[in-house]
Amino acid sequence: MSTLLITGGTVVSSTGRSRADVLVDGERIVAVLEPGSNLLGTDLAASVDRVVDATGKYVIPGGIDAHTHMQLPFGGTEASDTFETGTTAAAWGGTTSIIDFAVQKTGEAVETGLEAWHEKARGNCAVDYGFHQIIGGVDEQSLKAMETLLDEGISSYKLFMAYPGVFYSDDAQILKAMQKAAELGLLTMMHAENGPAIDVLAQQLHDQGKTTPYFHGIARAWQMEEEATHRAIMLADLTESPLYVVHVSAKQAVDQIAAARDRGRNVFGETCPQYLYLSLEEQLGATGDPAWGEFEGAKWVCSTPLRSRAEGHQDAMWQGLRTNDLQMVSTDHCPFCMKDQKELGRGDFRAIPNGIGSVEHRLDLMYQGVVTGEITLERWVELTSTTPARMFGLHGTKGVIAPGADADIVVYDPAGHTSIGVGKTHHMNMDHSAWEGYEVDGHVDVVVSRGSVLVSDGEFHGRAGHGRYLKRGLTQYLV
Amino acid sequence: MSTLLITGGTVVSSTGRSRADVLVDGERIVAVLEPGSNLLGTDLAASVDRVVDATGKYVIPGGIDAHTHMQLPFGGTEASDTFETGTTAAAWGGTTSIIDFAVQKTGEAVETGLEAWHEKARGNCAVDYGFHQIIGGVDEQSLKAMETLLDEGISSYKLFMAYPGVFYSDDAQILKAMQKAAELGLLTMMHAENGPAIDVLAQQLHDQGKTTPYFHGIARAWQMEEEATHRAIMLADLTESPLYVVHVSAKQAVDQIAAARDRGRNVFGETCPQYLYLSLEEQLGATGDPAWGEFEGAKWVCSTPLRSRAEGHQDAMWQGLRTNDLQMVSTDHCPFCMKDQKELGRGDFRAIPNGIGSVEHRLDLMYQGVVTGEITLERWVELTSTTPARMFGLHGTKGVIAPGADADIVVYDPAGHTSIGVGKTHHMNMDHSAWEGYEVDGHVDVVVSRGSVLVSDGEFHGRAGHGRYLKRGLTQYLV
Amino acid sequence: MSTLLITGGTVVSSTGRSRADVLVDGERIVAVLEPGSNLLGTDLAASVDRVVDATGKYVIPGGIDAHTHMQLPFGGTEASDTFETGTTAAAWGGTTSIIDFAVQKTGEAVETGLEAWHEKARGNCAVDYGFHQIIGGVDEQSLKAMETLLDEGISSYKLFMAYPGVFYSDDAQILKAMQKAAELGLLTMMHAENGPAIDVLAQQLHDQGKTTPYFHGIARAWQMEEEATHRAIMLADLTESPLYVVHVSAKQAVDQIAAARDRGRNVFGETCPQYLYLSLEEQLGATGDPAWGEFEGAKWVCSTPLRSRAEGHQDAMWQGLRTNDLQMVSTDHCPFCMKDQKELGRGDFRAIPNGIGSVEHRLDLMYQGVVTGEITLERWVELTSTTPARMFGLHGTKGVIAPGADADIVVYDPAGHTSIGVGKTHHMNMDHSAWEGYEVDGHVDVVVSRGSVLVSDGEFHGRAGHGRYLKRGLTQYLV
Amino acid sequence: MSTLLITGGTVVSSTGRSRADVLVDGERIVAVLEPGSNLLGTDLAASVDRVVDATGKYVIPGGIDAHTHMQLPFGGTEASDTFETGTTAAAWGGTTSIIDFAVQKTGEAVETGLEAWHEKARGNCAVDYGFHQIIGGVDEQSLKAMETLLDEGISSYKLFMAYPGVFYSDDAQILKAMQKAAELGLLTMMHAENGPAIDVLAQQLHDQGKTTPYFHGIARAWQMEEEATHRAIMLADLTESPLYVVHVSAKQAVDQIAAARDRGRNVFGETCPQYLYLSLEEQLGATGDPAWGEFEGAKWVCSTPLRSRAEGHQDAMWQGLRTNDLQMVSTDHCPFCMKDQKELGRGDFRAIPNGIGSVEHRLDLMYQGVVTGEITLERWVELTSTTPARMFGLHGTKGVIAPGADADIVVYDPAGHTSIGVGKTHHMNMDHSAWEGYEVDGHVDVVVSRGSVLVSDGEFHGRAGHGRYLKRGLTQYLV
Repeated sequence: MSTLLITGGTVVSSTGRSRADVLVDGERIVAVLEPGSNLLGTDLAASVDRVVDATGKYVIPGGIDAHTHMQLPFGGTEASDTFETGTTAAAWGGTTSIIDFAVQKTGEAVETGLEAWHEKARGNCAVDYGFHQIIGGVDEQSLKAMETLLDEGISSYKLFMAYPGVFYSDDAQILKAMQKAAELGLLTMMHAENGPAIDVLAQQLHDQGKTTPYFHGIARAWQMEEEATHRAIMLADLTESPLYVVHVSAKQAVDQIAAARDRGRNVFGETCPQYLYLSLEEQLGATGDPAWGEFEGAKWVCSTPLRSRAEGHQDAMWQGLRTNDLQMVSTDHCPFCMKDQKELGRGDFRAIPNGIGSVEHRLDLMYQGVVTGEITLERWVELTSTTPARMFGLHGTKGVIAPGADADIVVYDPAGHTSIGVGKTHHMNMDHSAWEGYEVDGHVDVVVSRGSVLVSDGEFHGRAGHGRYLKRGLTQYLV
Repeated sequence: MSTLLITGGTVVSSTGRSRADVLVDGERIVAVLEPGSNLLGTDLAASVDRVVDATGKYVIPGGIDAHTHMQLPFGGTEASDTFETGTTAAAWGGTTSIIDFAVQKTGEAVETGLEAWHEKARGNCAVDYGFHQIIGGVDEQSLKAMETLLDEGISSYKLFMAYPGVFYSDDAQILKAMQKAAELGLLTMMHAENGPAIDVLAQQLHDQGKTTPYFHGIARAWQMEEEATHRAIMLADLTESPLYVVHVSAKQAVDQIAAARDRGRNVFGETCPQYLYLSLEEQLGATGDPAWGEFEGAKWVCSTPLRSRAEGHQDAMWQGLRTNDLQMVSTDHCPFCMKDQKELGRGDFRAIPNGIGSVEHRLDLMYQGVVTGEITLERWVELTSTTPARMFGLHGTKGVIAPGADADIVVYDPAGHTSIGVGKTHHMNMDHSAWEGYEVDGHVDVVVSRGSVLVSDGEFHGRAGHGRYLKRGLTQYLV
Repeated sequence: MSTLLITGGTVVSSTGRSRADVLVDGERIVAVLEPGSNLLGTDLAASVDRVVDATGKYVIPGGIDAHTHMQLPFGGTEASDTFETGTTAAAWGGTTSIIDFAVQKTGEAVETGLEAWHEKARGNCAVDYGFHQIIGGVDEQSLKAMETLLDEGISSYKLFMAYPGVFYSDDAQILKAMQKAAELGLLTMMHAENGPAIDVLAQQLHDQGKTTPYFHGIARAWQMEEEATHRAIMLADLTESPLYVVHVSAKQAVDQIAAARDRGRNVFGETCPQYLYLSLEEQLGATGDPAWGEFEGAKWVCSTPLRSRAEGHQDAMWQGLRTNDLQMVSTDHCPFCMKDQKELGRGDFRAIPNGIGSVEHRLDLMYQGVVTGEITLERWVELTSTTPARMFGLHGTKGVIAPGADADIVVYDPAGHTSIGVGKTHHMNMDHSAWEGYEVDGHVDVVVSRGSVLVSDGEFHGRAGHGRYLKRGLTQYLV
Repeated sequence: MSTLLITGGTVVSSTGRSRADVLVDGERIVAVLEPGSNLLGTDLAASVDRVVDATGKYVIPGGIDAHTHMQLPFGGTEASDTFETGTTAAAWGGTTSIIDFAVQKTGEAVETGLEAWHEKARGNCAVDYGFHQIIGGVDEQSLKAMETLLDEGISSYKLFMAYPGVFYSDDAQILKAMQKAAELGLLTMMHAENGPAIDVLAQQLHDQGKTTPYFHGIARAWQMEEEATHRAIMLADLTESPLYVVHVSAKQAVDQIAAARDRGRNVFGETCPQYLYLSLEEQLGATGDPAWGEFEGAKWVCSTPLRSRAEGHQDAMWQGLRTNDLQMVSTDHCPFCMKDQKELGRGDFRAIPNGIGSVEHRLDLMYQGVVTGEITLERWVELTSTTPARMFGLHGTKGVIAPGADADIVVYDPAGHTSIGVGKTHHMNMDHSAWEGYEVDGHVDVVVSRGSVLVSDGEFHGRAGHGRYLKRGLTQYLV
């Protein structure tokens, strides 16, 4: 077991920053020390196997992306990142843990779905990984199966109020699952969009010949996100079940979450970089024409959809991050190539696989919010690492620079610069980027995962198989 | 310079807990280490001057009480704790820093008031102390004086919307002070009660022969706290000035703060143990008679007043602490003896000196909230230490267990027990306790201030003069 | 055609009151006159066929009960009032128009349902009657059928978010119906309870042996009324469709309606006397035991259910009536006898036919609110007659004392008294009364319908067949 | 006493419209009749002294402008309309009653102020007039004087939170006045702007050389209207006193009123045509330059000020009128000529007399809202006549077309057109118009006041002295 000293940097936590050295022994942090202190006579720098100089840089806990979909089958194709390519890209971007979604398809046993995901991931991940469980069909069998999830290290599961016929649960099913979750302590994650209503709108738009990607966002109206968010909150209220709303994109949905939180409810919200930076207007393209480039907007088709900047949704997301009405930023990384994948929806936006790939860029994109003054440096760490760890039962092991924790550490260079684009920093398995051309301040300099340096000097030193499965405990974020 | 190792305990921060040892060298924490780790060959326990065994106990950052009034002249008398007696009691209770209020009286120069407080405190404090500045008369001269406060280590000042003729500022004055504060980065603290209206009500009650302590709370109606809170928020909004509302006790005031925070404003609220546990009904005594014991209720006369439990204010305060609409718990420690002091108001509640003494009991009383499930262990630390440090520009030095920080550390025994009362744990200079007879779980076991053990084995080892003046920086809590 | 003069009374409208005589010629009001005025020389009292002396009494427009269910098939039985018995009871109580619900059953054509209701009512009504149309199965055919409703004199239709498998519409269906309604100008009425979730709760209670009537109210939790109310509002918002929520009983549902109205939406709410006066606690009986009298509470089983008085729902309904967040009071008259009907649910509250009979008592019960100061005299008239007329496209013909309007007039005696109970004023075809033992101030003295005196001197002079079908126009209440 | 028949028109009330003839005998309406009905044999048209043909026109109750300031001394000058010129202009515009403000100046007895106003008005008014009482100095004497106001026919009085040193009351004074008002049943009217804070801002702008009229609106920030509105509401809550907020112009103030109303409080709001149509942007002129035309913007200087259209205040006012969070539209008619009056403020916006003249145009401007679909025809009548009558204790006599009421009637021609401007329809004593160039649909055709035709065929037939003093009763609008 080797030792490592990260020295000279500024350690940033969710509540403050301080000059400190970090000593790693094997896979864990064993001490955080006054910088340069020769502790009781020992010259640490001379004693360790490796010293990383972090002078002028931030030393932060490795990013935790709690919402990814590697190799997700969707709409007749499959998300283009394997666990190997996806976690490698994550590592490049300073994310040292992901929590992906194991899928129970309707008609299949929960255990079967989970095992299938273990199979996809096992031995293939460059960084640590855990699973949430999607329950795609709430029935007696899957309710029973929920009882063993915690033993499997899965303390959160997800339901969908969207996608009728695919992942959709009706309110009776949601109620039953929440009751079970409340009993077990599991955290309910919710895709909160009114799917049945949205599908009607989408069909009508299609029938009117409004088939370009832009209309994806029109069909998925904010009213239907607000509605489903409130419905999920009331079902959670009735069952006294904590609730985590994924990929919030409508300001009115944030308002609903804020109102529940003001009443003291354990209701949480996550947003994603795309809802902070990108907008429905993007999909109109330069011409302002819904048929723009025929199909170029497909790269921004995701659900919940990008929303209108003129209506103020993006500002509301940033504000929600500041007010802690939104507690986390995940990516909902769900990459599809344009060729052969997004293209399936040419002529019918409903057939475009939903998803944007961002797992590699989350830390940089969120650091940009620090640069522009949207959030503080401490909040950046909290949103991207500390809260994800607490929310999903990893605190102590992940999410902090503290003795006893896994040595998942990123040295971040605020003086660096990152150019995003397929020909640039891009390592995800995609033929395009939703972020093509983004030039942002800051740069991921060194990435350490459980004591191993995965990235340094602009090179990747990691490998598939380094990443280990994370058995998670109950959420540590309830009030 | 001596060394100290606190070993075997559970270090609790505002975001989590972990088993870790804490190494102190002189006045500062130099390392936080994996427990029992013989770091690179060194046997720390054997090397240090002193070892504190914290097995089975919590190791937390020393408490910061950001609202005390030692030796405050009020109503023709003076708060009964000197800086020596008050800070000694604080130390007994695990509070290793206080922030007291230097007072500019109307007609006096700010500098004169500040120097007077330095004089009272200098050389007399058992724990570290800082000052907020009360501006009792906003005029050209005091506005000018605000410009040098930060150089004096004072980054926050307080105005009063109550007490016309004493500390009261009118809206024109508040506006000017807030503009100046916004320019300088100072944090505006506000006593938010509509004093002119309250004084009318108090006079009317008095004229009706309603003179017992109970009517103090009737005169200071919650509507006038809600009103003033909203007014302060709007003036802060207009001047783009952060706002910290002291001693919030009305649920409607919390609602106003929550609404401002939902809009993304830098508005903060503090409550006190008395607003969490005690109520207006208390002042009615066992008989339910407003004239109870003629005068016993005087010990609970403070402003803002205790409020009706039936109206739900206490529950709202706990909820506000959970929702982070209230960020801190201070004591508003302002002790008066019954004899010769509270007694001044026999026959006229308006003449009862306002104040309750709690500086010694804050940590225990708040830990009780952990025991009863009102707040989490982490939130306890955040409310009593980490946030006070961040709010008032002390983070890094105070409020965390981290290398580089002052070694202000409390070893707290969750298996201990504390009996509050004048003949029991009471060290404040008062002839009664607002908390007489409270039996609470948990106990302050060891108290370390800047590396010196002030309390251990039930004995006090500190001394007046150990406490040092805290030059504070700008608030670190803004979003 | 005969003439009638109502003289000496105080005519009350929704905005004020004045001393005035009302002259009726045939079926219509032809003049409202200064009392005692011998207009241009004519001695009216001597000229008319009949004079009604209203001295000391209120002269008000005949009551309009916009929510009744005569002969409604429900749960294997049928509401016990025929159109004849029900409208006769209505007449006794000062209600001169009802709007009943024609039912389209799933699988049946809308036209068939409507014709069936015409058949039940035709020639049998003692007072005028109109229909709303229940759409029990939204599909292409029924959407098409909506297009001719207005020609049939039906300008409002109702959907159910409750009762899966019976009347229930899912969100896709609701969306389509609302789109069609918005296009046609029809008013959407909504039974807003989340049926699928409620049915789960009811099943669980049943399985736990909680089978007495009390648990009907427990299963139909207020959270599920709030939820559905918000959902209906959002679907209405999306489709720009006016919305009328029937039988509101939860204060949180009123809050949702109030919030929508504050945003300027055309969202309306109706409550019923039972939600103003009766409570869930009633169903516990004197013993406070959920199994009270085994089954006595069945008489108060209705949906939405009676709600807890301790939670403040009844107060919220009265307040909603004052704030105009609720605009109308209807009865949801749906009578079932205890014998052979309510008794079907002995041992299983789910099998108790839902409904309370109040069509006869609405005016008296609401006048009681005037007596107790809950509402003003003018508001009483507005809630029971003027707004119902405007809401449902009858204004001009009904709902006002004005020339040109139908002579539907009630002389109400504020000095009178009404004893409610089966052996007393009760004329509804029920073997019990939800209001047994209610003693209220005020009394319906004379009832005139389209110029004919139906009730006077405590006797009924009306007849089945007097009542005429009301072809209604579009709602006149939109803002 | 002569008789008059208005025939063939559509009588519009606040709840509906109907074809009806109106018969006037002397000063009062004696009957409303079915059109063309030869009542029991009498040919009315042949019997009356005069017939007004209203075919194709609306017959509405005469307008009531509840907020005017004729001959008000302000800023060293006096409002330019005398009671004669002002009420003549009112009559031209279909307003048949005004309620002006008698002023108690600080230091003067209330009775003296009131008598002075009676003197100004007596014998000089073309239409009926009443008074509210301004209490410019709340003290023992004026509180005592409030007790006799009702006997004087004055049921409402006004306080100012603005204009320190002139009309301003502090919170202690407001509290005392509201207590007295609650006891007496008087309605408290409030000018809700935080004067002390605004005066600071105005002084600062002035000192920065920002002296043009535009900065009047900048100084009077919406935050200070929201603040004062909330403060007034809380003082009203504490004293259980109804509250009427005059000239609401900020959307956030409407929000505060709406919130109070949602809680069931008797809180009311009035807006004025200028806050519906005009904006702060107007004062920037065509160039967008705050110094526009040096001084042209002075004609729009009023308090509360015109607010930014970009911020949505105007839309919020219209919405407030629809939601009934605002109940009335008055003019706050307070005319000053440009020459010698507004000009006093050249170089210092603080010296511009505050006020806009609109008493003549209110009905037309509000009818424009009917044309554009902002409000309904019925709401137009309610806002301009029926509610003002009820709010201020005139219902029965004024505000309705009903037997027994004063024959104050306007025949309004929806096919007419009105050109506003000094050389056009303008009769107010002003050398300019805030509404210059407004071309609106609709026209006041015939104006009847207490049975006398004041305006017909485009000519004025009225006279100073026709108008009578209105002794008003208690408000009839409370819930």
